Amino acid sequence: MHNPPIRVTIWNEFVHERQNPAVAAIYPQGIHGALAEALSKHGDLVVHTATLDEPEQGLPPVVLDQTDVLLWWGHAAHDQVSDELVTRVQQRVLAGMGLIVLHSGHFSKVFKRLMGTSCALCWREAGERERVWKINPGHPIAAGIGDCIEIEQSEMYGEPFGIPTPDELIFVSWFQGGEVMRSGATWTRGSGRIFYFSPGHEVYPIYHHPEIQRVITNGIRWARPQGEAANTPRHVPVEQAREKIEVRGGTVHVEDGKLAGQ
Amino acid sequence: MHNPPIRVTIWNEFVHERQNPAVAAIYPQGIHGALAEALSKHGDLVVHTATLDEPEQGLPPVVLDQTDVLLWWGHAAHDQVSDELVTRVQQRVLAGMGLIVLHSGHFSKVFKRLMGTSCALCWREAGERERVWKINPGHPIAAGIGDCIEIEQSEMYGEPFGIPTPDELIFVSWFQGGEVMRSGATWTRGSGRIFYFSPGHEVYPIYHHPEIQRVITNGIRWARPQGEAANTPRHVPVEQAREKIEVRGGTVHVEDGKLAGQ
Amino acid sequence: MHNPPIRVTIWNEFVHERQNPAVAAIYPQGIHGALAEALSKHGDLVVHTATLDEPEQGLPPVVLDQTDVLLWWGHAAHDQVSDELVTRVQQRVLAGMGLIVLHSGHFSKVFKRLMGTSCALCWREAGERERVWKINPGHPIAAGIGDCIEIEQSEMYGEPFGIPTPDELIFVSWFQGGEVMRSGATWTRGSGRIFYFSPGHEVYPIYHHPEIQRVITNGIRWARPQGEAANTPRHVPVEQAREKIEVRGGTVHVEDGKLAGQ
Amino acid sequence: MHNPPIRVTIWNEFVHERQNPAVAAIYPQGIHGALAEALSKHGDLVVHTATLDEPEQGLPPVVLDQTDVLLWWGHAAHDQVSDELVTRVQQRVLAGMGLIVLHSGHFSKVFKRLMGTSCALCWREAGERERVWKINPGHPIAAGIGDCIEIEQSEMYGEPFGIPTPDELIFVSWFQGGEVMRSGATWTRGSGRIFYFSPGHEVYPIYHHPEIQRVITNGIRWARPQGEAANTPRHVPVEQAREKIEVRGGTVHVEDGKLAGQ
Repeated sequence: MHNPPIRVTIWNEFVHERQNPAVAAIYPQGIHGALAEALSKHGDLVVHTATLDEPEQGLPPVVLDQTDVLLWWGHAAHDQVSDELVTRVQQRVLAGMGLIVLHSGHFSKVFKRLMGTSCALCWREAGERERVWKINPGHPIAAGIGDCIEIEQSEMYGEPFGIPTPDELIFVSWFQGGEVMRSGATWTRGSGRIFYFSPGHEVYPIYHHPEIQRVITNGIRWARPQGEAANTPRHVPVEQAREKIEVRGGTVHVEDGKLAGQ
Repeated sequence: MHNPPIRVTIWNEFVHERQNPAVAAIYPQGIHGALAEALSKHGDLVVHTATLDEPEQGLPPVVLDQTDVLLWWGHAAHDQVSDELVTRVQQRVLAGMGLIVLHSGHFSKVFKRLMGTSCALCWREAGERERVWKINPGHPIAAGIGDCIEIEQSEMYGEPFGIPTPDELIFVSWFQGGEVMRSGATWTRGSGRIFYFSPGHEVYPIYHHPEIQRVITNGIRWARPQGEAANTPRHVPVEQAREKIEVRGGTVHVEDGKLAGQ
Repeated sequence: MHNPPIRVTIWNEFVHERQNPAVAAIYPQGIHGALAEALSKHGDLVVHTATLDEPEQGLPPVVLDQTDVLLWWGHAAHDQVSDELVTRVQQRVLAGMGLIVLHSGHFSKVFKRLMGTSCALCWREAGERERVWKINPGHPIAAGIGDCIEIEQSEMYGEPFGIPTPDELIFVSWFQGGEVMRSGATWTRGSGRIFYFSPGHEVYPIYHHPEIQRVITNGIRWARPQGEAANTPRHVPVEQAREKIEVRGGTVHVEDGKLAGQ
Repeated sequence: MHNPPIRVTIWNEFVHERQNPAVAAIYPQGIHGALAEALSKHGDLVVHTATLDEPEQGLPPVVLDQTDVLLWWGHAAHDQVSDELVTRVQQRVLAGMGLIVLHSGHFSKVFKRLMGTSCALCWREAGERERVWKINPGHPIAAGIGDCIEIEQSEMYGEPFGIPTPDELIFVSWFQGGEVMRSGATWTRGSGRIFYFSPGHEVYPIYHHPEIQRVITNGIRWARPQGEAANTPRHVPVEQAREKIEVRGGTVHVEDGKLAGQ
């Protein structure tokens, strides 16, 4: 049971790091660059980065098809991501690719497509204290994390968060201003595993925090493809039924043998 | 605690009943007509029908806004349903409207939008026997149903069914040809409750079956709006924080006070 | 659909109200008395109280069998509750009785029996502020509650809380001292619905708070029996199989026809 | 990320193999012996067996404490397992040990303790055909399994199965006589992962079936401890609160400083 390396692609819209000096000072190589540097220290991860301004918005099929786990960071440019790319990412997740959605990615087209809900939340940008409590100590995404992660300056993201009930809730955050947030949660969609992790506002150096990096690394290992791709819709001809049966009754399907539907 | 009547809208694409004599013979008033007749016997239900060929595809905002629970039946014309209508239905569900998706509606745009998955399955049209087992006897949707519902002729719908893990599984079906299917399942999305129920192929008189009608009636009562609409994304100004805090650190938001994101 | 009244039994160990003057001052008729008074205002609830010092610990079969929803409050005397009673309550829940577990009832034998887990948590008694956030606005248990319930003085109950993943999470609490807690959560066990609600420390007047009373009232209505009792294990003789089959192969069962197991 | 070997303990009551010649012919070394032989072929598994007739019923603390994943097979002697051992196994699971419950183990004290429900089901011993459908192709427990596993002779185990809603449903079985069964399902309790897998009646050679062995092997790898043990209840003194707070209001706790409860 020696697993092959995990092929990670970090996607970043890469906008605020080039527009806002405060953000540029924290992430001179972009958020994707900072995360790539941190993740590349782990021998089991092979890291690639991609940004919105690249050809095919950084994720042509050849890249997606060779990605085991995709990280998604977007904030100001959600609307610029093409619906075609969103569909491609969704298909890859359903086929087994892992997806880690970070911070403001909660409002990305990709996350909303996979959740089917508003993904809306409350927010406040005041540099207040956040405390990310580990509520599921046995979960591999929480491995190596103490009782909670202290983030001295954070953007408040608060409930109600418009998501389907998570399969597993890993972290819940406390904010100095009085709110709470389901800040680390997982879902499976098709054969793909999804992890949403809310800390990461770009005007604070959150992705430089070792425990935040640890959670993301854990999340990648957890989200790597586990089984097989879910299959596509399939007609089972009568003669292939596992038990011998004979056709009885009518049909809605057209004469020429082409199935009109199912 | 006397509940007001439930306003039910039965939406049907209404195609096969007009094209296929076998289907027309079973449902001379359309599937929506047959269901409306059955449901109207219950004093707590106020039933309306709508079809694809009507203005605004039968579901203008004024109709949707006055619908507590929407039934959806489609098969041959999924692609004709406008994306605008799909968005409208999704918004209403997230705001609390119940949704009952019937049979081939598994592949409707509406169901796929809310699930975020392929919603694909296996199928065979052989008029074989289906047995719908009640696996959750305490659930209100199963009230009044015996151990299982026997359907003498049915279309096989089989696993794997490409859905998110249901919140609750109510029925699992056995098919004569050897397959199984999660045939009755529920989800909550936003403030809306969703029930998928697979029996109902249009060339067999399944919706005339009293126990099938009972399940659908139960489903409507279960899916009626329960609480309040989930709220929209909301900025919480610093001065409205529940605990007194002061702004520290930078911002990504533009000078003129208009929030660029969250 | 006019529902019959809900028969509510409030069980209280009734210890601290008789030992501690501070508690007695807040609840002169006991916590059960205060809750009974609040609940009795609702015409759809028929309220009965029961305490540990009564015959059969207040819950003989005749009482349990006529209870639709049982409220459980215990703290100092969990160990005095007989295992026989715990089994009886468990059986009634599996058969469909609703159960509302309040505050320190998290550590009751009844709750631990039904959860199968430690039900452990962190705590601190400092009279600090608690804010109970509504995270599931569409849920009937949250109906009529604003964004959050403010409790000026509360005992801290904090994560990690040793429970199975709830079916639904309704409330998450924020504490002044820095912790968070899944403070309102639901499960279904057999045909019975269970709601745990954590606010309620007895040295503060929490059960006199109108919104806390509202949540408990909502919880009772939500937890009332919905369907039918789950059935007991059952042997299906070959001749009663739904499809005609013949016995092939051996048996582990003894000659005299008495089944040794399943 | 090279994982250490998984320490597997196969526990078997070992009764029918010594009483019933038909069973002895299929499992001359006992079911535990047959499974041990199959599992030992995998280099990442270190296999130990234990039986009811051994000292401390085969599972003294020293054995349990060195077990990563425990397999449980019992049928005729559930009642002979001591409550003390059941508690020890439960504690180990909550602390992170994986547990695979096989076939008639559904009615073991251990499984019922962890589920909190009846765990009852319907059954028939007729040597009929079972087809175990894979409904979750992306799950690691289903890796390497085709659309379904065909078992020519099996005992029917049918719904309703008295379990809490599984976290994940992996397999659903079809039976020749007309029933269905959730035959492969998972739960997490505390930090431990639990997998129930129903095929395995002892008068048929089901555990010699390569695909059944594959599922059990997959289950062991999936169930191995992932994170950390959930913590025990813990008092957080006021002076250790993460935010500075001061005590306000009363207490239920006794004068001498010993905490009476929480």
